[in-house]
Amino acid sequence: MSMFLYPLYGNWVWGGGWLAQLGANLGLGHGHVDFAGSSVVHMTGGVTALAGAIVLGPRVGKYRRDETVAAIPGHNLPMAMVGTLILAFGWFGFNTASTLNATDGRIAIVASNTLLSSSAGAIAALATAWYLSRRPDIGMACNGMLGGLVAITAPCAFVGPAAAVLIGALAGPLVFLVVALLERRVRIDDPVGAVAVHGACGAWGALALGLLADGSYGEGWNGVAGPVRGLLFGDARQFLAQLIGVVCNAIVVFALAYGFFRLLDRTMGNRVPSEVEWTGLDSLEMGSQAYPHA
Amino acid sequence: MSMFLYPLYGNWVWGGGWLAQLGANLGLGHGHVDFAGSSVVHMTGGVTALAGAIVLGPRVGKYRRDETVAAIPGHNLPMAMVGTLILAFGWFGFNTASTLNATDGRIAIVASNTLLSSSAGAIAALATAWYLSRRPDIGMACNGMLGGLVAITAPCAFVGPAAAVLIGALAGPLVFLVVALLERRVRIDDPVGAVAVHGACGAWGALALGLLADGSYGEGWNGVAGPVRGLLFGDARQFLAQLIGVVCNAIVVFALAYGFFRLLDRTMGNRVPSEVEWTGLDSLEMGSQAYPHA
Amino acid sequence: MSMFLYPLYGNWVWGGGWLAQLGANLGLGHGHVDFAGSSVVHMTGGVTALAGAIVLGPRVGKYRRDETVAAIPGHNLPMAMVGTLILAFGWFGFNTASTLNATDGRIAIVASNTLLSSSAGAIAALATAWYLSRRPDIGMACNGMLGGLVAITAPCAFVGPAAAVLIGALAGPLVFLVVALLERRVRIDDPVGAVAVHGACGAWGALALGLLADGSYGEGWNGVAGPVRGLLFGDARQFLAQLIGVVCNAIVVFALAYGFFRLLDRTMGNRVPSEVEWTGLDSLEMGSQAYPHA
Repeated sequence: MSMFLYPLYGNWVWGGGWLAQLGANLGLGHGHVDFAGSSVVHMTGGVTALAGAIVLGPRVGKYRRDETVAAIPGHNLPMAMVGTLILAFGWFGFNTASTLNATDGRIAIVASNTLLSSSAGAIAALATAWYLSRRPDIGMACNGMLGGLVAITAPCAFVGPAAAVLIGALAGPLVFLVVALLERRVRIDDPVGAVAVHGACGAWGALALGLLADGSYGEGWNGVAGPVRGLLFGDARQFLAQLIGVVCNAIVVFALAYGFFRLLDRTMGNRVPSEVEWTGLDSLEMGSQAYPHA
Repeated sequence: MSMFLYPLYGNWVWGGGWLAQLGANLGLGHGHVDFAGSSVVHMTGGVTALAGAIVLGPRVGKYRRDETVAAIPGHNLPMAMVGTLILAFGWFGFNTASTLNATDGRIAIVASNTLLSSSAGAIAALATAWYLSRRPDIGMACNGMLGGLVAITAPCAFVGPAAAVLIGALAGPLVFLVVALLERRVRIDDPVGAVAVHGACGAWGALALGLLADGSYGEGWNGVAGPVRGLLFGDARQFLAQLIGVVCNAIVVFALAYGFFRLLDRTMGNRVPSEVEWTGLDSLEMGSQAYPHA
Repeated sequence: MSMFLYPLYGNWVWGGGWLAQLGANLGLGHGHVDFAGSSVVHMTGGVTALAGAIVLGPRVGKYRRDETVAAIPGHNLPMAMVGTLILAFGWFGFNTASTLNATDGRIAIVASNTLLSSSAGAIAALATAWYLSRRPDIGMACNGMLGGLVAITAPCAFVGPAAAVLIGALAGPLVFLVVALLERRVRIDDPVGAVAVHGACGAWGALALGLLADGSYGEGWNGVAGPVRGLLFGDARQFLAQLIGVVCNAIVVFALAYGFFRLLDRTMGNRVPSEVEWTGLDSLEMGSQAYPHA
């Protein structure tokens, strides 16, 4: 991931590579634009997670012989919420610092949009879970918050506050639906929802920029005159450039990651014995216990 | 709260309403002044909590038949401390951002005062608990820290560092005394001390501004010439304006909240069955468990 | 600590005392330089901890009759990690604010170096533990992160990013080795590794400044012309000034702290009865329980 996949795709978008040059070469908006990494960072991670989950297969005990699906919840929901809040707080640094300059006044818009989309994602995921599974699922609210954050990462500097709320409000249900689809229909075991949160919401964030960028920022990006505008603000070519980037990410990253995980499987192996899975990797692989006196 | 009570009182103080205009109309200082919300946000919340606690009544098991009072502690004190620290850290954003402008140099004073009052509140509440109940009660130190934060929220931009320490150092014991008074004398069950922390310390913070504002900030607030000065710095009228705001909050917010909770009680009900209380709302109302494997 | 030890040594370095004046008086670089407190804050604390651990003696049950050493792990490793991350995050405020001026552009270098050294410290301590004790010990990674932070505290404004990585990468193994040395050879029981993290890494940080300061900052410090340069950047005298400060800290702070702890031991005593140690100080000394329902 760090040495090959992320630098490769990152260079195509942020290093002046062919996805950045789509605008100049094919007359497509400003080329593929991603402010802080919905496609470059998150979708790359989520697509890699999908490849890994397919090659690795489900955890022991996830799919029972009678075809029902076992829930394998985390052991400590309050700590999961603390972790989500630490992530959400860190995102303010992640997104705003992507201006690369503390004197860029756009930082205030970036921070506001980050907050709005994360909140909308949490509330929308909670409402979706409450409506569809009759349960106000806090874990899903956490993943919805992360989905909103992932989705706003690309467009955070280019859209207004109302668009940020919309982007989060669609990311939340998207997380719920992709989690349910993977687990129950496609029967792929994604233990922490990485494919839904980072993959699906990363793609949605890159596309949302192509729809909702309102022309208030991005003058001269990738050498193209004029600010970045999405489909709904008059530039259908920007949406096309975003779509090309997302499709390219899905194909290239998936193929390379799938090949890598298969290679790993054939050579050194990628799975612990099932006794270790049942006992927990903490004690048998790490030799540490989270709660030594329990 | 969000749709009616807070906007109503908030508009009176921050929206140029009658409490803000007290200065111009009655010759009372700058009208009711509240920098970041001791009265507008916190006292409104604490008074609403008082009304709710009265209408709802005590938790099952709080007051025993022999008139003794049961302690019902939280289940995880370390997590309560983490939550308190997250709140305290967030307060730096809350108070400093109320300058509405990152170039306002007063931000440094606001941040320092916020830190000083929170620390003084924690230490003073701990000392009070240690002296009066012979126990260095960490939960009370947490509530004292929050009390110090609530109390400095109104005056944080208008007072100096020594005044900030004094404000927190009085907020801490205030939390202890109001908690003990409510629980043991008035026999109102306030499970998290919201009435003491937000109600009592919110009122104290608004009044403290009227005593200790030192004339170093607030030039032209509410259209009145000169900076904001409290009673001890020569302007008794500012204290009167603060007192009027606090009394008005107590009367209006309590009446409206009490009426609302009574209405809720008569129509859809406001209380779960006692079996649900004993079992915990997590599992029966939410269908989630904080610690699924415990 | 707060009333005597820290003010004494702090004044020698930060208050224009004799360690600060070494440069002018003895022609030694800029005198002892410590940006945010590797020696002034941390080494002082770590040396005091060493004196306390010697006088207090090991915990009941630490050293068995057969001379083997018992591990006494903390009860909740995830909370230890949350605490480490809170400390690490707070360090950004600690180090950057030591510029005393938000308009000093050096803040960006200070923050980057803080991040780099903490990460390098965590990874290097983890690798050392993995290699030497065959176990990827998370608690050691946490202490390595803290060691990297302590070590970069003095030099953070004076060195470049590569030097910051090096400083952290040496601090991590240093923590591991000093912990092992104290526990197994010297048989001093330091329950949280304070001597290793704050004492040893504090000394290393002060010396690292004397080696790696690259002459990009510190013009005019302590009234000496020219920026601060370490041994590897042409000024061996700066290293000597750092060494004198470290040796002086070790001698003076240890002697005063050791005397104080011995005095305490002879007068009011410094140790709870062993029943209290076995039961836990929480309940018997504090009268509080962290997990009341457990």
